[in-house]
Amino acid sequence: MTSAIDIMNTLGKQAKISAVSLRMADTNKKNQALTLAANRFREDMADILAASAKDMDNAEKNNLEPALKDRLALNEERVEAMAQGLEEVAALPDPVGAISDLVYRPSGIQVGHMRVPLGVIGIIYESRPNVTADAAALCLKSGNACILRGGSEAIHSNRAVAKCLRFAIKEAGLDENVVQLIDSTDRALVGALITAKDYVDVIIPRGGPSLIKRISAEANVPVIKHLDGICHVYIDKAADREMAVAIALNAKTHRYGVCNAMETLLVHQGAVDCLPEIIQQLLDKGVEVRGCARTQAMNDAVIAATDEDWATEYLAPVLSIRVVDDVQQAIAHIEQYSSAHTETIVTKDYATGQMFLRQVDSASVMWNASTRFADGFEYGLGAEIGISTDRLHVRGPVGLEGLTTQKWIVLGNGEVRS
Amino acid sequence: MTSAIDIMNTLGKQAKISAVSLRMADTNKKNQALTLAANRFREDMADILAASAKDMDNAEKNNLEPALKDRLALNEERVEAMAQGLEEVAALPDPVGAISDLVYRPSGIQVGHMRVPLGVIGIIYESRPNVTADAAALCLKSGNACILRGGSEAIHSNRAVAKCLRFAIKEAGLDENVVQLIDSTDRALVGALITAKDYVDVIIPRGGPSLIKRISAEANVPVIKHLDGICHVYIDKAADREMAVAIALNAKTHRYGVCNAMETLLVHQGAVDCLPEIIQQLLDKGVEVRGCARTQAMNDAVIAATDEDWATEYLAPVLSIRVVDDVQQAIAHIEQYSSAHTETIVTKDYATGQMFLRQVDSASVMWNASTRFADGFEYGLGAEIGISTDRLHVRGPVGLEGLTTQKWIVLGNGEVRS
Repeated sequence: MTSAIDIMNTLGKQAKISAVSLRMADTNKKNQALTLAANRFREDMADILAASAKDMDNAEKNNLEPALKDRLALNEERVEAMAQGLEEVAALPDPVGAISDLVYRPSGIQVGHMRVPLGVIGIIYESRPNVTADAAALCLKSGNACILRGGSEAIHSNRAVAKCLRFAIKEAGLDENVVQLIDSTDRALVGALITAKDYVDVIIPRGGPSLIKRISAEANVPVIKHLDGICHVYIDKAADREMAVAIALNAKTHRYGVCNAMETLLVHQGAVDCLPEIIQQLLDKGVEVRGCARTQAMNDAVIAATDEDWATEYLAPVLSIRVVDDVQQAIAHIEQYSSAHTETIVTKDYATGQMFLRQVDSASVMWNASTRFADGFEYGLGAEIGISTDRLHVRGPVGLEGLTTQKWIVLGNGEVRS
Repeated sequence: MTSAIDIMNTLGKQAKISAVSLRMADTNKKNQALTLAANRFREDMADILAASAKDMDNAEKNNLEPALKDRLALNEERVEAMAQGLEEVAALPDPVGAISDLVYRPSGIQVGHMRVPLGVIGIIYESRPNVTADAAALCLKSGNACILRGGSEAIHSNRAVAKCLRFAIKEAGLDENVVQLIDSTDRALVGALITAKDYVDVIIPRGGPSLIKRISAEANVPVIKHLDGICHVYIDKAADREMAVAIALNAKTHRYGVCNAMETLLVHQGAVDCLPEIIQQLLDKGVEVRGCARTQAMNDAVIAATDEDWATEYLAPVLSIRVVDDVQQAIAHIEQYSSAHTETIVTKDYATGQMFLRQVDSASVMWNASTRFADGFEYGLGAEIGISTDRLHVRGPVGLEGLTTQKWIVLGNGEVRS
């Protein structure tokens, strides 16, 4: 039997070779591959749906949770959405090769940066087979080879999707190994992928906290990851009350299961007058409200919040509220409990807003806007492969540029050091 | 006895607290701390030299190599140079807080980036006590707290230098814990530092390959590192011959022991006419020349190069030369053997130069300039803490900006997601 390491070495070598050719591929060819793959999805619809049916049968046999089954399922509409996703990535500007900051230095040389692909990206994900298409498209467009490892429950769907992608990539005249799916459900391959330092430049995990924790702990390849989204809204004393109510409600109730939803509301003691309305509207929408003593005093339906609440990402219709003495206490609370994803302040006061913007150290810091805007599309990235709460390389929504790096370029006329 | 982990936890907590205050410190205060420290070095000259004398005594007893002793030694001139180094960093622009790319999005929000410190940086280095001052200054100016771990042979000098720095930082009204020296020669502390994920955001090792390999293998904190500098000069068929000779000689002989010195010269078969002169001038300067068969045919003094030569960073008056069929073979040679530090092409041909610039995937890629320019000062960074041959976060010379990251900022007027 071939060992996980042997399989990974083969995939890794193929990825590395393909990455060298992809690095130089012109934008038209990459776009052509994406467009051809989109068409292929439509042409092979029956095959993809048949593969999905096998996964769904197994899901049935294995008593998968309904929520997981919903994520796993492919239908005509979802395959069409995958195809359109590829076409949207094809329409995005190509970041590779862009030269910036080219300046003359006293020595006479010109020095600047050129944007280049990272190399080989390993993507580890669960359930949703559309990630196979989305992630591969973003890697391809940004000039990176990828090695994809989907969940075992989606193996048939992922195979069918990857087959279309590779077919189209070859048709466009590129090396089909720029997209490789780990065609095995052996868990040892995850371990082999996240330690394949010689072949893989970065790992991007997409999935639940347990998957991401395991990968972070065991990987020796750099990881771009996002653990929790414990996002805060702070309503300042000088907040426009109507705006504060609107932002707080939107940040919590627009969607509950997303990482950029608010999990804790902080309210200046001088702005508690807006709390009764916020709490009532939340309760009307079926949100469970937990709060500090001062919040509880506002409404009998408010449950006492514990220390654990401040550190919890509910991803559910639950909100914790704390009344704070001032903006400094709000910032200190965020410093202690935030997952450094996204925080927002609502205030009309210039100095307070500036202070919050400067002092809060999260991937996204907002002023008078809903945390729900922390998103690759809303930020203008066109698409995102994930949201990074790490500090190095890339923070916040990761789009095509986040999948690239820069090299220095020097243009001279025979200059030498003296 | 306090364990290494306990010591690191104490240092780590102190660093993290100090980093929060330093993140917000204004530029004047940081500059004041640097200027006061420079003066302190001059005032405490006698103490610093006395500390250094202790290190030199121990070095004598331990039979340290002369080269190491030279690196270790402090004298009035070197202390003055350290002081001036701090003043130069004080004079550099502060990268922290700079806002860029702020644009309006269709939703009405403005989205942009703000440059912020990385947090806590661990620096591990050998011998040279001036690194204590240089590294601390760059971290301080870029708003990062640092934990410094110097070589045990320099412990007295490092202590004296760190004492001056901390005194001046406190004098300037900042938290002195923004600079902490690990005041112990226990090797277990290196292990504790590079795995202190809760406190340290990035590790920067500065030293020989064995130190860096050990740290890369054992760290679970991200590492910004630079292993070898196997730099290439490629002389194209269309090279200006006079320029080619000048660049090849400068890249090899300007300084031998530096990472941006050329280690392999590649010459197009149609440009071998410039080889006799290059080889003769190298030999005249006492450089040992090794080469492929076609190079050996040029001069009897050329020794046969082995495969190992192409993969060796000599850091010495030795050069390997290979004649290649064309630019593609040169690029393939670089792809196989380069350490991805710096490569240069000498050519008058536009298309060939552009191709080299695009295809070669090193931290610095040059056209008609000596590899010796790969340097923070030459690139305009003002100072450098090292040169990264990694791909993520920062590549090539790392200056103040490389010690920072960016957060997203969003400015709104009450916008919510619909």
